[in-house]
Order: sequence, then structure tokens, then C-alpha cells
Amino acid sequence: MARKMCQEVKARNYHIDSYGHVNNAQYLRYLEDARTDFFEELGLSIPGLNARSIHIFITATNLQYRKPAKIGDKLLVYGWFIKISSRKATWQHEIYRKQDNALILTGQISGMFLKQGRLTTIPSDVRAAMTKIYIS
Amino acid sequence: MARKMCQEVKARNYHIDSYGHVNNAQYLRYLEDARTDFFEELGLSIPGLNARSIHIFITATNLQYRKPAKIGDKLLVYGWFIKISSRKATWQHEIYRKQDNALILTGQISGMFLKQGRLTTIPSDVRAAMTKIYIS
Amino acid sequence: MARKMCQEVKARNYHIDSYGHVNNAQYLRYLEDARTDFFEELGLSIPGLNARSIHIFITATNLQYRKPAKIGDKLLVYGWFIKISSRKATWQHEIYRKQDNALILTGQISGMFLKQGRLTTIPSDVRAAMTKIYIS
Amino acid sequence: MARKMCQEVKARNYHIDSYGHVNNAQYLRYLEDARTDFFEELGLSIPGLNARSIHIFITATNLQYRKPAKIGDKLLVYGWFIKISSRKATWQHEIYRKQDNALILTGQISGMFLKQGRLTTIPSDVRAAMTKIYIS
Repeated sequence: MARKMCQEVKARNYHIDSYGHVNNAQYLRYLEDARTDFFEELGLSIPGLNARSIHIFITATNLQYRKPAKIGDKLLVYGWFIKISSRKATWQHEIYRKQDNALILTGQISGMFLKQGRLTTIPSDVRAAMTKIYIS
Repeated sequence: MARKMCQEVKARNYHIDSYGHVNNAQYLRYLEDARTDFFEELGLSIPGLNARSIHIFITATNLQYRKPAKIGDKLLVYGWFIKISSRKATWQHEIYRKQDNALILTGQISGMFLKQGRLTTIPSDVRAAMTKIYIS
Repeated sequence: MARKMCQEVKARNYHIDSYGHVNNAQYLRYLEDARTDFFEELGLSIPGLNARSIHIFITATNLQYRKPAKIGDKLLVYGWFIKISSRKATWQHEIYRKQDNALILTGQISGMFLKQGRLTTIPSDVRAAMTKIYIS
Repeated sequence: MARKMCQEVKARNYHIDSYGHVNNAQYLRYLEDARTDFFEELGLSIPGLNARSIHIFITATNLQYRKPAKIGDKLLVYGWFIKISSRKATWQHEIYRKQDNALILTGQISGMFLKQGRLTTIPSDVRAAMTKIYIS
């Protein structure tokens, strides 16, 4: 049965900006780190894909900022697929503050699969792994 | 008559990631820098607003990545308002590569105005300045 | 008996620059994260110190780059004190690549203790904790 | 006659950390940007060197932090060579705050020249250009 994957990350001194909370761009980095590690947990390493000349190109990132995160906050970064088509896919993300389970951010990240720079069908082994975290 | 504002930025060594192009999160920083400078050109400094206890909280960032930018690329970052309501506003952005005018990225950034942490009406002087770059 | 503290960190996609290895500035962030967590392990939280109006101001950072780190490398970040005087202290750092124990970087980070912006004596409880990782 | 080169940069929102001033690692990025642009002004582009299989590997960075820089500060970043040997060179940097000419940071950055990964003699055209900003 499909499930959401989760990773914990800590808000660092230099993630904070002059407003005293985590900078808007930093969240895209939390999400990128989480997706990389989620793929690894699914047995799909990015270097392994690249060795097969397959690259994932991010086509869109949509973030909704709900509450600011602060220095030292432990954040739970969730991710799963909400759409997997033949050559494209979309992740859904949620970030919660661990201490009180407050929702900090929601986001959707879309990407397409390229082989030697051209749009390509998601390989069947990759699709099989991705399907494990697909929730319709 | 309303106009789009524009700023030039250069893609730096550390903006590039292991894929050899500008990292997805870096674009949010190009856009943030541009908005800060656009506000200053309009006579609205962020420190000045903060001194009046007014803060702009980013509520959503939506980016569409069209083409990858590379090391040394000179990028033209455009911005203007597409929506100004009583307490919220939305910027439209476009980034073009200067050398060939290729479209690199489009984006929409929404924010709300807060006074001492509570949603507040956009002050009339701020609204007047913002209207100069509002294109319906 | 004094000991070196150690933390593992992973070289991320956006830590890499256009040369294909970890950017020179990124190492200062690995070291800062390690020091923060080492202090916490010693029972000294940075927010706790700040609440006592005590801040540590970094006065010098000296890094020696030995070998480049690459995407996905797991890095072991070591830290301990080599100098603790009445109002200043110096950390020694070493970073090793986990897979083959190659030395990636050595560094020395010096800081001074401030109370309300003025140089101050290191509080005795802080000094006692720091001494646990002091190696002459 | 040899001269110091200079570039202006602005302290941005996300350069600031939770202490309210520019983060220690950010200065290495200001210096890297400056050196890249200084080389270009001297007619030495990094991509041009790379096309000749020549890379500069940073071997050491030593920074002395004098005063903290704050959001919006305009910073004057100076750079010149203090040492040029057959295969290595060392830059001297100074950063001043434009508004009051306060000294913010001094630094020394050393690098070596590599050709296809092996230490190599600095090419004569590169040395000639570098000598223009060498101050003994």
C-alpha cells in the first residue's frame, strides 16, 4: 500500500533571513534534499539514473507558506507522488514543525524525464519504485 | 502608464548545481533581490516599511522553469504587479537570458501585508507606488 | 578525558558548484552546523546563551582545502578546542570522506564572547563544558 | 603601475543569519564573485581558462572578521595579488562598508594552477595579466 515518505531536518542559523525566519528559497532546498533521499530509500539513486543518461528536469515548483519556521526548529518533510504520467510526475510535499505539529508549508513539484536532453518515457523499474509512494 | 521593471543579474559559480545549471531554488533569490530593488526604485524601502511595523509575508511562490541557465549567463529579471487587493498583492516575473533573449523562467509571487503580525490594509502611499507597476 | 566530537553530513546537489565539487564557502556551513550541534551535545544551546545576552562573534576562519568533495559524499566533520583563553577560543576542525577516510579539509575557527556587545569572560559553566573537548 | 581592483556588492536579506548580520560563509561568496569579475576585467575569463584545461584550485582561505555587515549595506570588495609564484598565487582582500568606510573584513585566498588535474606553471599571458594587480 502506498505511503508518504518523511525526513527530519533542522532549521540552521544561515537558513534564517533578516526577518528572523526561514527564507522562502530555503524550503526548495529542504524539499530537494528530501526527494533525493526518498529516491535513495526506494533504491533509485540520482547518480545511478544519470549513469543511464536519464535526468529529471524540474518544470514547476509551487509553494504555499503557512507559518514561518524559526532557528532550531525541527521540521518533518513529507513527500509522495500525486501524479505519474508516461514522461512526467508531480510530487506533493508537506512540512510540519515537529514540536507542535503545526503545518509550515505545502508544495507541489513537477518534473519531466529526459534522456540525452530529450523527453523520455519513465523507465519501468523507476515507475515501479515511484508507484510505491503514489497516492491518488 | 504602468511598466515592467527590470534588473540584470549574473549566474555565479555557486548558483550552479551538480547538473551544471542554475539550481531551482536560486531563482527565488534572483526574484527576491529584484523585488527589493524595484521597491527601492519606487521609493519604498523594506527597512522603511519595517520601521512602520509593516512586513510583507510571502504566501505563495509559483515558478515555471523553461530553459536552464548556465555559469556566466547574464539574466534580465522582470517584475510587475498583476493583482493588488486591499491587503494582498501578486507579482508576475519573467527571466530572460540576455544574449539571445531566451525565456528562462516565469513566476508568480504572492504576499500579504502585516502590521505587528496581523493582516493589514496596504497603506495608501505604498499602494500608490505599487500601482505604477500594475498591469491588468 | 578530552575527545574530538564528530558529525556526519552529506554533500548535496546545490553544495556543488560549476567545477563539479563542493564550493569553498559551503565548508564553513558544514563547520558551523557541526559546532552548533556539538555545543548542544555539551548541553550548551545557542538560544540559551543568547537568552543570557551572550553571543559568540566569529573573529577568524582559516581553511585548508586538501581534496575536493563530490555530490553524495558522506563527510565526517570533527571538531575540538585547541585554545581556550579568558574571553576567546579557537576550534580545530577536520573533515574526512567517510568511504575512504581521505582528508578533505582542515580548519581553525576563532571566536570571542560578547555580552551586550562588549567582550566578556567566558561564563564558568560554559568553560567547563568547552573544556571537555579541549585537546592541548 | 599595480593597483587594487574594487567591486560593489549589496548585503541581501538571505545573506543575513539569525544573529542579524551577514553570515560568516557569505563573505567567501562576495570574494569569489569579485575575483571572477576582476579576472574578466583583466581579460581572463574562467571559462576561457577551463577551455585550455586550466583550473584554479583554492588551497586556503583565511578571513578576519572586523565588524558585522547588515541588511542593505553596500560593501566595497577590494582584491589584489600579494604573492605570485610559478604555480601558485595568493590574493589579498579587504571589504569596506561604503557609507562610512568602516573595515568589515580582511582575507587572503591562495590557489594553485592545475592542468588536467596536475599542478602546472601559470601560463605567461595569465601571469602578465595577474602582475597588473600585484602589489609587493
